[in-house]
Amino acid sequence: MISLYGKVTNIHAPLEKIFKDRLSFNEALREHHGNDVSWHEAQLPDAVVFPKNNEEIQKLVKLAVKERIPVIAFGAGTSLEAHIHAPFGGISVDLSKMNEVISFCPEDMTITVQAGVTRKQLDSYLKGSGLFFPIDPGADATIGGMVATRASGTNAVRYGTMSDAVLNLTAIMPNGEIIKTGRRAKKSSAGYDLTHLLIGSEGTLGLITEITLRLHGVPEKMIGGYCPFPDIESACNAAILAIQSGIPVARMELLDKLQVKASNQHDNLNLQETPTLFVEFHGSPTSAKEQAELFNEIVEEFDGGPFSYADKMEERNALWTARHEALWAAKAYCPGKHMIITDICIPISKLADAILATQGDLNDLNLTAPLVGHVGDGNFHLFLMVDETDADEVSRAKELLKRLVHRAHDMDGTCTGEHGIGKGKKATLMEEHGEAVVNLMKTLKSAIDPDNIFNPGNIF
Amino acid sequence: MISLYGKVTNIHAPLEKIFKDRLSFNEALREHHGNDVSWHEAQLPDAVVFPKNNEEIQKLVKLAVKERIPVIAFGAGTSLEAHIHAPFGGISVDLSKMNEVISFCPEDMTITVQAGVTRKQLDSYLKGSGLFFPIDPGADATIGGMVATRASGTNAVRYGTMSDAVLNLTAIMPNGEIIKTGRRAKKSSAGYDLTHLLIGSEGTLGLITEITLRLHGVPEKMIGGYCPFPDIESACNAAILAIQSGIPVARMELLDKLQVKASNQHDNLNLQETPTLFVEFHGSPTSAKEQAELFNEIVEEFDGGPFSYADKMEERNALWTARHEALWAAKAYCPGKHMIITDICIPISKLADAILATQGDLNDLNLTAPLVGHVGDGNFHLFLMVDETDADEVSRAKELLKRLVHRAHDMDGTCTGEHGIGKGKKATLMEEHGEAVVNLMKTLKSAIDPDNIFNPGNIF
Repeated sequence: MISLYGKVTNIHAPLEKIFKDRLSFNEALREHHGNDVSWHEAQLPDAVVFPKNNEEIQKLVKLAVKERIPVIAFGAGTSLEAHIHAPFGGISVDLSKMNEVISFCPEDMTITVQAGVTRKQLDSYLKGSGLFFPIDPGADATIGGMVATRASGTNAVRYGTMSDAVLNLTAIMPNGEIIKTGRRAKKSSAGYDLTHLLIGSEGTLGLITEITLRLHGVPEKMIGGYCPFPDIESACNAAILAIQSGIPVARMELLDKLQVKASNQHDNLNLQETPTLFVEFHGSPTSAKEQAELFNEIVEEFDGGPFSYADKMEERNALWTARHEALWAAKAYCPGKHMIITDICIPISKLADAILATQGDLNDLNLTAPLVGHVGDGNFHLFLMVDETDADEVSRAKELLKRLVHRAHDMDGTCTGEHGIGKGKKATLMEEHGEAVVNLMKTLKSAIDPDNIFNPGNIF
Repeated sequence: MISLYGKVTNIHAPLEKIFKDRLSFNEALREHHGNDVSWHEAQLPDAVVFPKNNEEIQKLVKLAVKERIPVIAFGAGTSLEAHIHAPFGGISVDLSKMNEVISFCPEDMTITVQAGVTRKQLDSYLKGSGLFFPIDPGADATIGGMVATRASGTNAVRYGTMSDAVLNLTAIMPNGEIIKTGRRAKKSSAGYDLTHLLIGSEGTLGLITEITLRLHGVPEKMIGGYCPFPDIESACNAAILAIQSGIPVARMELLDKLQVKASNQHDNLNLQETPTLFVEFHGSPTSAKEQAELFNEIVEEFDGGPFSYADKMEERNALWTARHEALWAAKAYCPGKHMIITDICIPISKLADAILATQGDLNDLNLTAPLVGHVGDGNFHLFLMVDETDADEVSRAKELLKRLVHRAHDMDGTCTGEHGIGKGKKATLMEEHGEAVVNLMKTLKSAIDPDNIFNPGNIF
């Protein structure tokens, strides 16, 4: 294996000593571990290991630091900006064998899990407990990956993102120390907030192995459904007013006309092909009903409707499955095209302006991109379809991405609401924060990982 | 002025050049700036300055770093662990002249203020806007101070602490850079979370000067009141069950029997002298009523009640003023005694056990300490009354504090829920986190402030 400084090292034997048959150099496996769901080209690690506990990772990190070999944490490979790609080779640390629930405290509404537990596995575990974990990025990501990338998703508008959901975490740091960032108390003011420093650090500061999460009570009543609008502006304005009115919507997702078409085809739905909001309200029977009624008034104000309730569990599931599959529906809708997935987030009052201007750009630049959005958060995604063999289209797509980010910044928003920087948005990180802030981030990185062993080339 | 390394420096002239008549060496003023609300002895800065803008602070920081002179941010001086004390002298930076609202965006429910704006000033500003800022630590602290110490208070059980309330902030860093940590988008995943790194850093990493806050809609209906219980255990158990049942209580404050006595005397109340919960519910008229009814059922289950509603605004204000004045009521109740104010926070399920054991300790050790608590968060405070001239009592008080922190840790809780480390809890920081974590915090401090200019002796 080649070190970060180009030195040939032979760490095969010591790696094998730690991981035995849980070490692999297989190319197909490395291909899988060097390639996420994004449009970025694969970059393969030199080896993949499957640790079973913190101590094995600790030994690995000490070895990797000594030999200057990159260490890249791998959850489910569902990131969207090449977070797990290995531009400098090194070792992909697949956490799928660390997938136990460590402790469940229903009386405190907390659960501690290993990083390799997936979102769906956690859902199954909690079934029947009266509690649930709301963060739902669509993909069946691992909890560790969700922490490392500050995952968000459909429920974030009401329940917050991973940044709000983590009480403490355990991580192996580049100096080989195993640290736990806090305790199970709901709040603390004991020193620096290391929990939030590691949340969203995308594998560059520490390798997260255990997480204590806040859970929520399963709402007594959920009312959900969908609502068509005559145009995208009215759908956006209804979403804005719902938030401004303080309706505690649990989910409020926009699908533009093109995405509705794509989802109809892919998921056997029969939705009217017009901009549509998928909505869900949680509460007591009285309060969920009250929210739905208030929302209905807003819908009427913007000539939307009628609101179709998905009363049965299976109807509701079909709707949200379609929302989660939007990405694949979009891809299937434009066969043969390369799909660039991107997102921005702006203050809620700018939502309609931002989406209208983006659709204007798509039109001007003659590009196709179904649009979906966690619009209650002011966050939306584009599935930009590009023919990679068409140089002009590729260049127009780049222009669109540039305009999208500039607009987000002009509106006091961010270049990414929930996808992260990874290897794909490094230039926009600088545009967003400026040199002083990026330098401060680099100062933290160098202080914690002076040899740049943890996910080198990521974020910076 | 003497530098951190004992060198005599003369920075009087350059300081005067920056601050003109807003520089003072007056002893009474320095006394005020070297002494917070805590039991810790005053430690005076050498000078106090009153900057008017970021650029003046930037100049000051560059000068201070060059001459190795400590720089200590000062808000309202209401911290509780000597955060603003100056054990190495230096310059207290009083932010009271930076108290403007920079921009108010009701359509996004955000406001950007200078650090010297106080909580009450912000309340007044927002009056009539339909929006409010919920974080309420009791004292009329500055927003900057509240960010720096991760303030919490009575509404945190529903609305979260300062950690949840800040969208972005501007700070002057020890390298003289003015940084802004983010934008106004509700969420972002663009790089490291510098906002949370600075929240709760107690003036040791950056000098916070501007803050963008999330606001909330004023609830349509507030129902509040108080409820006596036969004993402390039943009051705690009612609080635990209310949280476990998912009632979104806006405030739920415990006063033990002694504190009720003290508050009756100090605030002209006529409460039954028994453990009491002060409670408030926010929502639509239907939902607030529903919450109050559910809570009443729980109260009855634990033989509490009757619940007395404070229907009129002035009744409600009288109640919450008494709660905010609890500290002064406790002090007045034990004239001549020194008051040690402390807090811990534990997982909610341990609340009754922790409070009962603490009262057992007080009994065993023959000590007096009114107790109040943000019990919905598992957070409670002791006002420990000590005769400083009685060596035995002082030693028993120390034993009590030791047991309190040990118990918090045994219960997977924290040595401080909202008071911070300051200069008073440095030993417990190590006990709570262990060497690896504290060393990591020190690594961050050294990377950002290599000369230890920002609030030296604080936290570490």
